[in-house]
Amino acid sequence: MSVASPTPRQVGATAQLVDFIGRRDRRAEPATRAALRALTADTVGVAVAGLGTPAALLVRDWVEDQAPSGTGAPSGTAAVWGSASRLGPAAAALVNGTAAHALDWDDAAPSMAMHPAAVLLPTLFALAARRPVTGAELDAAYSVGSAVFRAVSEVLPHAVHYGRGWHNTSTTGRLAATAAGCRLLDLDGDVTAHALGIAASQASGSLANFGTMTKPMHAGLASRDAVMAVGLAHRGFTANPAQLEARGGFLDLFGDHDPRRTAALGERLEHWVTGWVDDYAIKAYPSCFATQRAIDAGLSLREELGAGVDRISRIEVTLEHGGTRPLRDTGPGNGLEAKFSLEYTLAVALLTGNVLLGDFTDEALERPGVAGLMARIELAERPPAEEPGHTVVRLHTGDGRLLVRDVHHSRGDSHRPLSPAELAAKFHQCVGRGPAKASWFDALHAVPDADEPRDLQTLLAGPPAHG
Amino acid sequence: MSVASPTPRQVGATAQLVDFIGRRDRRAEPATRAALRALTADTVGVAVAGLGTPAALLVRDWVEDQAPSGTGAPSGTAAVWGSASRLGPAAAALVNGTAAHALDWDDAAPSMAMHPAAVLLPTLFALAARRPVTGAELDAAYSVGSAVFRAVSEVLPHAVHYGRGWHNTSTTGRLAATAAGCRLLDLDGDVTAHALGIAASQASGSLANFGTMTKPMHAGLASRDAVMAVGLAHRGFTANPAQLEARGGFLDLFGDHDPRRTAALGERLEHWVTGWVDDYAIKAYPSCFATQRAIDAGLSLREELGAGVDRISRIEVTLEHGGTRPLRDTGPGNGLEAKFSLEYTLAVALLTGNVLLGDFTDEALERPGVAGLMARIELAERPPAEEPGHTVVRLHTGDGRLLVRDVHHSRGDSHRPLSPAELAAKFHQCVGRGPAKASWFDALHAVPDADEPRDLQTLLAGPPAHG
Repeated sequence: MSVASPTPRQVGATAQLVDFIGRRDRRAEPATRAALRALTADTVGVAVAGLGTPAALLVRDWVEDQAPSGTGAPSGTAAVWGSASRLGPAAAALVNGTAAHALDWDDAAPSMAMHPAAVLLPTLFALAARRPVTGAELDAAYSVGSAVFRAVSEVLPHAVHYGRGWHNTSTTGRLAATAAGCRLLDLDGDVTAHALGIAASQASGSLANFGTMTKPMHAGLASRDAVMAVGLAHRGFTANPAQLEARGGFLDLFGDHDPRRTAALGERLEHWVTGWVDDYAIKAYPSCFATQRAIDAGLSLREELGAGVDRISRIEVTLEHGGTRPLRDTGPGNGLEAKFSLEYTLAVALLTGNVLLGDFTDEALERPGVAGLMARIELAERPPAEEPGHTVVRLHTGDGRLLVRDVHHSRGDSHRPLSPAELAAKFHQCVGRGPAKASWFDALHAVPDADEPRDLQTLLAGPPAHG
Repeated sequence: MSVASPTPRQVGATAQLVDFIGRRDRRAEPATRAALRALTADTVGVAVAGLGTPAALLVRDWVEDQAPSGTGAPSGTAAVWGSASRLGPAAAALVNGTAAHALDWDDAAPSMAMHPAAVLLPTLFALAARRPVTGAELDAAYSVGSAVFRAVSEVLPHAVHYGRGWHNTSTTGRLAATAAGCRLLDLDGDVTAHALGIAASQASGSLANFGTMTKPMHAGLASRDAVMAVGLAHRGFTANPAQLEARGGFLDLFGDHDPRRTAALGERLEHWVTGWVDDYAIKAYPSCFATQRAIDAGLSLREELGAGVDRISRIEVTLEHGGTRPLRDTGPGNGLEAKFSLEYTLAVALLTGNVLLGDFTDEALERPGVAGLMARIELAERPPAEEPGHTVVRLHTGDGRLLVRDVHHSRGDSHRPLSPAELAAKFHQCVGRGPAKASWFDALHAVPDADEPRDLQTLLAGPPAHG
């Protein structure tokens, strides 16, 4: 974006977002379609598995208890993914978002700590209960949401926001999902401005709740609130239409508000609306994204060591600046906390040759050898100035060898994508196997290609009866 | 609170709250019963009037559209106050809280900017749909919530929190209402700790949305989230059980976390659990609390001036430090914004001799003489060190007179309470007149006196058919 003068009269941040969200002249790119195909099937898959976790079970139970209908099943129009239950759109978004994030196996943005699909897709699929949608509409809405997620995070900036203790997936996620929803329903600019203002007053989520059931619920709450903000604004509900840049508005409350950074918002939105396809990762391992690169390094080192894991004397892991922020700094007390322990996940990778769902039960933490190996792992961060995104693992053996791995793109990153077979294998680990499940995977995978408007709720509810 | 040594080992803030909430040995004091009687009838009254505002109508319409039942009426157990409609407890809390705050005529805490009853009572009455409650249970729960509201605000501290742009009614309100709900349902300490942790991750609400429909919804959202936090924790849902004091927890994110201030939390809770009855105000005028003292001064000055309002040449209004924060700094564009304009409300008081609901229509802003008088009013704040809580109005006339009023307790403050007849008159201005309405006022007024457990939903739904 070029500027007309050294001190240009700025268009407000909210107005920049509104203009961006309202644009209708974008063409669906093959690359975004392909990314969205993978994300749709993957996100629904991890949500179906996540629906069985205590966090999602309890949220679902609470939601269904809120408004029992006479028939024993809550009435509504939006599918709980992989289930015959239908809820109101906001409640469905809450349950599906929580389930999608519950195993910490949903996608991530490698450039900054956030989980876009677990917030955006539950919102979009819940709003799609209002009317059938085409693949191109989903593509445009998802891309808009992805861009708002990343561009607003840059403006805060993310490092300050996240470093202070805000769970960006949940805070900025509300704005991003609201933007995506406004795009999907093709709302007017004024309505969009109010929707963003409403969402800004709902933004919340504390990193101090990581490792508890509240963490995955953050994604569900963000999705629910986006559905609500869109629905209220659509009806004429008002907020400050310049909320983001207002005194005490979103940028003030959640970041270090700097008008010079905000001036770049329009340019960053245009960058990310197509650029997000170079900045997403479908996770190969069911643990915090901050552990993924180290797991890859561990698996590679294990191959080199062979059966000699007991020869390891010490492991130094160096993360990018701020890279330990999502991680626990004390040993995990249960399986959920273990997902946020780099020491635990790296030890499991070295000891077993993989990191699987079954490694995050409370019992798995007690397996022989794990604690001993964890105690030999030391974490550090590189200084801020050095290149971000790399995890370096330096493994020392008792006989004086030093083995080093430097991992930038973890397996599943868009630069190192899972193969179709690996994607399907992850899906089946989540939802089970069989022809109906395989057919469901294919059908979900094809959603972003639909040319005709399509009612998605029956498809989202589960595998086709035949197939 | 005495301390054992200069550097005592502190009990964490969350644990202090949990201990406080769990205490069962308090006796219901006559003073709290009396305050709660007035607040119950007043809050339901302003909510019934508020249910007709666009903000509450749109929230209610959205809620009812979320889960339409086959019969056209949403099913649920908790009453929408003054209506035959019943919703799920969380949805009822959302609607009732929004309605209670929609006219900005609900109660306030004179010591700091907050509206306790509009958050606490919707939560408690929605949770009371789970089982009948006694007056003593309501009294204990309300007092606990009132104490948590004020004591946590002091710890943040409130001036920093509110000054930064957080709507304390909504942020700390979630913790306060969650605390009240845990007390009402007599939950275990562990469950209470998790409930507070869940509520902390939902805390939100931006002052930049004042003067829009989102502002009253903040009270509804806080009530809804408290119902949810209590319900989820009751089921075994987890959060960080030391959330408030954790790195990146509530105190970090929403205040200037100072362990020395936090050390006083227990003492402040014990102070406010009875002391809140000296720190509540039932509003005489349907506008922001920050305008109430100036309105009182204006009405008194009008009496002295007689018909000579046109002789006013200039009015200087001096508020306490931070006292202008909730107010608009530009002229109101509509009736809702006018509630946050000290200039408008003071001008109306001087011109008409009262400030009534009808003064906050969009048309009322255009009345002759209002704009001219508003232009002659100047606002200032006193320095931080001076005594808080006073509003000083200095009125200059064209013939050189200076009239001064210094108002500390506005009409309706607990130190200058509304008479029973004035309370009833306000109620009837809200809900209408007639024997059934008078009987409803008496029945609501008597709720805190119930000795036997009582199902409140039928009473909350509206006036008795007879009477």
